[in-house]
Amino acid sequence: MADFKAPLRDMRFSLKEVLNYTTHCSELGGFEEVGDQLLDAILDEAAKFVEQELAPINQSGDQQGCQWNDTVVTTPDGFKEAYAKYVDAGWAGLSADPEFGGQGLPPSMATLLSEMAGTANWSWAMYPGLSHGAHATITAHGSDEQKQQYLGKLTSGEWTGTMCLTESHCGTDLGMLRTRAEPNDDGSYALHGTKIFISAGEHDMTDNIVHIVLARLPDAPQGTRGISLFIVPKMIPDANGEAGERNGVSCGSIEHKMGIHGNATALLNFDGAKGWLIGPPNRGLNCMFTFMNAARLGTALQGLAHSEFGFQKSLDYARERLQMRSLSGKKSPDKAADPIIVHPDVRRMLLTQKALSEGGRLFVHSLAMDVDTTESDASVEAKGVADARLALLTPIAKAFLTETGFESANLGLQIFGGHGFIQEWGMEQNVRDCRISMLYEGTTGIQALDLLGRKVVGSQGGLLRPFLAEIQQFCAQHADNRHMANTVAALKTHCEEWEQITTDITMRAMSNADEVGAASVDYLMYSGYIVLAYFWARAQATALNALADETCTEPDFYQAKITTAQFYFEKLLPRTRSLVATMEAGADPLMALDADHFHF
Amino acid sequence: MADFKAPLRDMRFSLKEVLNYTTHCSELGGFEEVGDQLLDAILDEAAKFVEQELAPINQSGDQQGCQWNDTVVTTPDGFKEAYAKYVDAGWAGLSADPEFGGQGLPPSMATLLSEMAGTANWSWAMYPGLSHGAHATITAHGSDEQKQQYLGKLTSGEWTGTMCLTESHCGTDLGMLRTRAEPNDDGSYALHGTKIFISAGEHDMTDNIVHIVLARLPDAPQGTRGISLFIVPKMIPDANGEAGERNGVSCGSIEHKMGIHGNATALLNFDGAKGWLIGPPNRGLNCMFTFMNAARLGTALQGLAHSEFGFQKSLDYARERLQMRSLSGKKSPDKAADPIIVHPDVRRMLLTQKALSEGGRLFVHSLAMDVDTTESDASVEAKGVADARLALLTPIAKAFLTETGFESANLGLQIFGGHGFIQEWGMEQNVRDCRISMLYEGTTGIQALDLLGRKVVGSQGGLLRPFLAEIQQFCAQHADNRHMANTVAALKTHCEEWEQITTDITMRAMSNADEVGAASVDYLMYSGYIVLAYFWARAQATALNALADETCTEPDFYQAKITTAQFYFEKLLPRTRSLVATMEAGADPLMALDADHFHF
Repeated sequence: MADFKAPLRDMRFSLKEVLNYTTHCSELGGFEEVGDQLLDAILDEAAKFVEQELAPINQSGDQQGCQWNDTVVTTPDGFKEAYAKYVDAGWAGLSADPEFGGQGLPPSMATLLSEMAGTANWSWAMYPGLSHGAHATITAHGSDEQKQQYLGKLTSGEWTGTMCLTESHCGTDLGMLRTRAEPNDDGSYALHGTKIFISAGEHDMTDNIVHIVLARLPDAPQGTRGISLFIVPKMIPDANGEAGERNGVSCGSIEHKMGIHGNATALLNFDGAKGWLIGPPNRGLNCMFTFMNAARLGTALQGLAHSEFGFQKSLDYARERLQMRSLSGKKSPDKAADPIIVHPDVRRMLLTQKALSEGGRLFVHSLAMDVDTTESDASVEAKGVADARLALLTPIAKAFLTETGFESANLGLQIFGGHGFIQEWGMEQNVRDCRISMLYEGTTGIQALDLLGRKVVGSQGGLLRPFLAEIQQFCAQHADNRHMANTVAALKTHCEEWEQITTDITMRAMSNADEVGAASVDYLMYSGYIVLAYFWARAQATALNALADETCTEPDFYQAKITTAQFYFEKLLPRTRSLVATMEAGADPLMALDADHFHF
Repeated sequence: MADFKAPLRDMRFSLKEVLNYTTHCSELGGFEEVGDQLLDAILDEAAKFVEQELAPINQSGDQQGCQWNDTVVTTPDGFKEAYAKYVDAGWAGLSADPEFGGQGLPPSMATLLSEMAGTANWSWAMYPGLSHGAHATITAHGSDEQKQQYLGKLTSGEWTGTMCLTESHCGTDLGMLRTRAEPNDDGSYALHGTKIFISAGEHDMTDNIVHIVLARLPDAPQGTRGISLFIVPKMIPDANGEAGERNGVSCGSIEHKMGIHGNATALLNFDGAKGWLIGPPNRGLNCMFTFMNAARLGTALQGLAHSEFGFQKSLDYARERLQMRSLSGKKSPDKAADPIIVHPDVRRMLLTQKALSEGGRLFVHSLAMDVDTTESDASVEAKGVADARLALLTPIAKAFLTETGFESANLGLQIFGGHGFIQEWGMEQNVRDCRISMLYEGTTGIQALDLLGRKVVGSQGGLLRPFLAEIQQFCAQHADNRHMANTVAALKTHCEEWEQITTDITMRAMSNADEVGAASVDYLMYSGYIVLAYFWARAQATALNALADETCTEPDFYQAKITTAQFYFEKLLPRTRSLVATMEAGADPLMALDADHFHF
């Protein structure tokens, strides 16, 4: 079985050939230095790091898991050492502000690194990944003093960060949270409460952890309008800015989970822990929303990661495993049987994984570039466009790519037959690790309500229209290309239908608010298939262009893109047919049954 | 969280009200004694047994797993004791021949017991479940002496059995198997080879295990026509028929798996183990096919089991968990939030589980009754009808109910949000345990080839037509019932389409055999949705009938059936729309890509 390889060729196709990444960087203002050479160098180095340091400890990390012993968490063998190398090499600060020691590259660079690290070893990648929220919160809302205290250490990776939101009785419904913050005399607060499901909440990889904690001030209003944000370091920074005295926050236990065993999911007890208010009082949730899109994009990545990982492994297996003969005649007559890749249904499973992985990659990269724009010195107009695009597409990316990522991971397992169920091949771990992605950072149902309720209906189509126009513009550009005729026709039909369905649901929702909830997940998945169709259309157009060049040196690569695009349009996009039908059926079939009559 | 309850009310609805089980038994010949009273008594007693003895050791069995130590396997705490109670109570011989100590009830009775036991604790239920294959093989093909030696012990449950097919290099493609059987002087054979993935292959619950082993005689032809069957007991029966001398078969290890940790999946080494030929030489695979349908039905049950288990638990949770307010106005204003069952998308997930569980139950029960007929003294004609129905519907039941069972188990987990990923709630175990069902006893892809290639195309529609006629007859019977109008219309349209699509694929397959493989899984799932629609239509008709009776004492139960049927027709059956589109797209999109060009 071949070792994991970062999909460099495909990442370059996505970034350099389809999405014009380096042009994008030059237009951001301040990132003109990101040319092809720098991009290639970073991708190559990152690939080396994840292949050599992270992939080898993925399976052992799962089997060993994290160990908890009286508030202390020990990460699996090799995790700490790999993290030290990550910090030493400066990876942690790739996209961070040079003022605090960062390398000042666009945020998307960190996303590309996360993509590779997460594909090689998702559990490990969550430790640096979780720092992002703390870093972004302090950058956006911290006082100068707070920035000086924390951003340097978070940028270097010497300290990691967490986001402490969930309590046992509330996850989605944060308005119910009970952790309270009592003012101390020195301007700090004493936090009391218990948080659960804190990813990377305790570990042995750094000497400090910076928790960003949602809590209530004594006089706070009920509900979501009474939540404030606090910085609660595990060790209180001393006068030199180093980890000092131990704070009153401790890890009460870690969860026994289905997957991501290498990442510690902590229960944290705040027993009068010292915290410092960050941002205005009672505006904590609003402050958090400023980087919610980036955090959700980080989870969308997870779907892509497990899809790619399973695809690589199951493709290897399908080429090597000999079993049965092709129905259309022996393909390897010299062998005892044909490799299973000859069987149409095995190809269906491989191509589904391929189309979801490579299409998902374009989708994620494109959104990461929008994040660049929103956080850059680009024009107000350009930022507005990127903001609107992110608002619409982020919940789709998060839910659609994790749902289809889970499907893809399961197909990877399925190709192994009974062997897929056995630990040693790594495919069942890939499925278990993937399963969390549809739950955290807002479940699929929550993303769907965000998309349909808040973003689409809430904006009266204002967020959807520009994206439809973007697709229609693409269609217009390729209207005369006969090789794109089927693709363009399918995209146009779907855009019209998407608009019509949106209108229909919006109308129905005016008389019954449950129509939004009833259609939401179908609507999100429907939208996702169209978004992915658009990115596959762009890949197809790029590949056709490349092939038209007589000097093209990789015809097989580009032909495979075209073939996969065709597969996508003929075998995956038609899933919209069922979703349209179930959306049209409306809310009644869901709401008719009395809650007491579901089981007798 | 409520304890698991066997779904007795629904089982009775299925058996007594929809499928006329006791009439069926009286028509089989020899089973006239199975009236409502006996059926009720058995269901009640079985429910008590599985609720009190099996459900409580389901989660602990997962966490503890089986332990292997130098050929000895220890099952989880309580497994052995529960098995002893099962044997003492006579459950093992429920459907077995009274000549060997059985209770002589129809085979379907054992299936009903398996359904309940498997829902409570699938890992445990596999131990007695695996005995079925050995029992059936010896019953069908054993000599009188072999029957005398083994059937009594297998009937009482004092010994268990296994089926030893798979080797590391072949699972689906048994023609490649290498285990060999050399003749001894005494008429027995010495078996040499290694078998893997032997469920219940070694354990501490009984003092003997009867392995049925596929192996090659020295002069055997290559491929599947050179496979013979052997009885290889772990302990050779002594003169008194008790477990005697240790045979040369031993457990080399057990697999570390994604789920079903409570069941030992053994690697068995045959080092000159003594075996006795059963059935004619080189006809082993044919002998096995005689009860393949029953074995596959046993796995179809697993999809139903995990669907029902997840449904019960997630329904409880959805009624208790308070989170957010209904979009259409507060439903529990006195509480901090509404129970999540008010949210349309949570209801979608619950109703999907409900429709798949209860519809799947009807499907499985109906097939179990066909098995009764084939194994009874019914007329040749009646047996022929049942045989044809089983041939067509068994691969559908196996693959469709396990694929949708896995979906259902995942929806159960999803309703718990992040808590679903945590071991303590049992939902992630339910998903892990379920995952194997799409792999063993022939993967989904293999079932689909069996259905479309062997059964449908192979019989030139001869197996499909009678089942279509059965549905059409149902439609004709209910043509004038206005409450059934939508249902009947949808069934009729789908029957016509099913026939048309079958013709289309058959035509295409004449010029390209890969068209069968390309359409196969879509075709199977498409067929499955229609089959389930038919059973939901029958449930609806039965419920309408019951409600029309003025003395009806359970109007809520029957109304819930009608509402769920409507949900099925409006929200699940439309999945056929996408499957039709992808089947129509044919094989080309799957076969176009060169095997070397899937990844660069």
